Amino acid sequence: MREIKHIAIFGAGGLGRNMAKLLGHKKTMRLVAACDSGGYALCPTGISAETLDLIPPGASVADLAGIGVASLDGIGDLLLCHEQYDGIFLSLPNLPNEFIPQIVQRIADSGFKGVVVDALKRTRAVEMILGMRETLQKAGITYITGAGATPGLLTAAAALAAQSFVEVESVDVYFGVGIANWDSYRATVREDIAHMDGFNVERVAQMSDEEVNAELDKRNGILELVNMEHADDIMLEVAGVVGREKVRVGGIVDTRNPKKPVSTNVKITGITFDGKRSSNTFILGDETSMAANVNGPALGYMKTAFWMNQQGISGVYTSAELMPRFPH
Amino acid sequence: MREIKHIAIFGAGGLGRNMAKLLGHKKTMRLVAACDSGGYALCPTGISAETLDLIPPGASVADLAGIGVASLDGIGDLLLCHEQYDGIFLSLPNLPNEFIPQIVQRIADSGFKGVVVDALKRTRAVEMILGMRETLQKAGITYITGAGATPGLLTAAAALAAQSFVEVESVDVYFGVGIANWDSYRATVREDIAHMDGFNVERVAQMSDEEVNAELDKRNGILELVNMEHADDIMLEVAGVVGREKVRVGGIVDTRNPKKPVSTNVKITGITFDGKRSSNTFILGDETSMAANVNGPALGYMKTAFWMNQQGISGVYTSAELMPRFPH
Repeated sequence: MREIKHIAIFGAGGLGRNMAKLLGHKKTMRLVAACDSGGYALCPTGISAETLDLIPPGASVADLAGIGVASLDGIGDLLLCHEQYDGIFLSLPNLPNEFIPQIVQRIADSGFKGVVVDALKRTRAVEMILGMRETLQKAGITYITGAGATPGLLTAAAALAAQSFVEVESVDVYFGVGIANWDSYRATVREDIAHMDGFNVERVAQMSDEEVNAELDKRNGILELVNMEHADDIMLEVAGVVGREKVRVGGIVDTRNPKKPVSTNVKITGITFDGKRSSNTFILGDETSMAANVNGPALGYMKTAFWMNQQGISGVYTSAELMPRFPH
Repeated sequence: MREIKHIAIFGAGGLGRNMAKLLGHKKTMRLVAACDSGGYALCPTGISAETLDLIPPGASVADLAGIGVASLDGIGDLLLCHEQYDGIFLSLPNLPNEFIPQIVQRIADSGFKGVVVDALKRTRAVEMILGMRETLQKAGITYITGAGATPGLLTAAAALAAQSFVEVESVDVYFGVGIANWDSYRATVREDIAHMDGFNVERVAQMSDEEVNAELDKRNGILELVNMEHADDIMLEVAGVVGREKVRVGGIVDTRNPKKPVSTNVKITGITFDGKRSSNTFILGDETSMAANVNGPALGYMKTAFWMNQQGISGVYTSAELMPRFPH
């Protein structure tokens, strides 16, 4: 594997573009490839965030002069060049649940032997990835799932905070997200709406942008989410920290204001070996954006995955089992 | 390695005895050996915390009927039986700084090939352990240093919280400890006094219990500590999170009241990739004892070390680089 790791982003929407910006701060990792529904772009000397921003949101990386290639199967074409990169960040839409697992199957079949990190959110989607353990192990891929903010940073904080206890009674994740302009986060906002009463993944998939806008208008742009189907539950269960039924995830998303409506936090309550009940709390500062809290951990977990891959450890791990490392 | 891991505690003072109590809650780990300056005790079917409590504080595990053996070198004798255990928790006095590193050298020389975890606190001591990387790697030992509360739980929280940022500006650890009766934590309280202005490790080592008592009396039993020499700094530097000069550790120890005088917390301030300054905070509940916050993480890191050892990974790691796992 290369000294400076070559990174590909599968998906060049808001999440992927922010990952490109974050990678611009790193000397030990370099963005060399991106793909989307319109094609792919590949440049071993590096693709900067500024280059990606030459194409407007919604346009394809295929339009990038000199390095873009139009294709009906940008992912498949980029997988043919898998020797060109060491790590893949999956910044594709999370919905439908099967979408990313199907892509992962294609990655496993391609002969790629590096690391893959996702920022999946739904329990069902992470469950599907966990079911691919053997496939990914045989392929020699080190895969870390649920490696964003929540699940991800906050799930890891819960697994860490649990160490004070012999029995964990509850894990409560409550997040606040402020988005200045939902256009940049179309997929994320749709996912959030799908968590609300009366909606589901299938219904949201069929909604037009106008219908989404109308739903946001009804609520003054504010989405309040309770008892979300979030993979923090299965990840903490698989890590042996607590049964999934004791993990609750909720939050408030303001789609019209970049200020967070509440401070994102996770509270872990349990019983100590000397019989005391107590709660440990991890609170994220209001000034960090969703993008900082998703992409930072994802890249940190990618560094951990590179280390594991070098040690010959492949298969699927979750962010609750590993400490993200700090890439420079 | 055994399915149910056999654990030895080197040192049977307050810390070691609480580890015995914690191990009493675990089905996958079993305390089988303990040693102290008076000898050792070994029982492959298990030594309960209740058994250890049959001997009064200050007395030796050598006095345990049936399983205790008096010896001038309890550690050396127990190391001759190293096939009897898979993991060692070092609950020996931390001072002088060279003491634990010297014991670690003996462990490396003994032929033991399992895992070792310490709860060292001083920067200098952890530095010495980090210097033994090659020795421990060659010996086939997986060693995790600084795996208590601070350094340990809070250092790991800082490394995790740093993921929101591209640059960490400061890490501030501030702890509150309440001890009902300092007699049970003689070594710990002495260590704390050594951190205060006008004291050092050598001076404290020569103080009698009466002199320690007199110092505590002067301060109504309260020790306020600032800018402590604590290994959180070197551990976060080695993990690549932040330069050691940006890590500050302080706290208040009340030696006459089990209630914590302040809530233990760590605050991580940094700059995000999108140029915002923010702080993430991890706060421990006041109801968890120092013992719960030290021994829980130490055992969690031991589980991680067992996994690494099984994967063929040996050498020295710090609690800032790894996620502790949750033993049952």
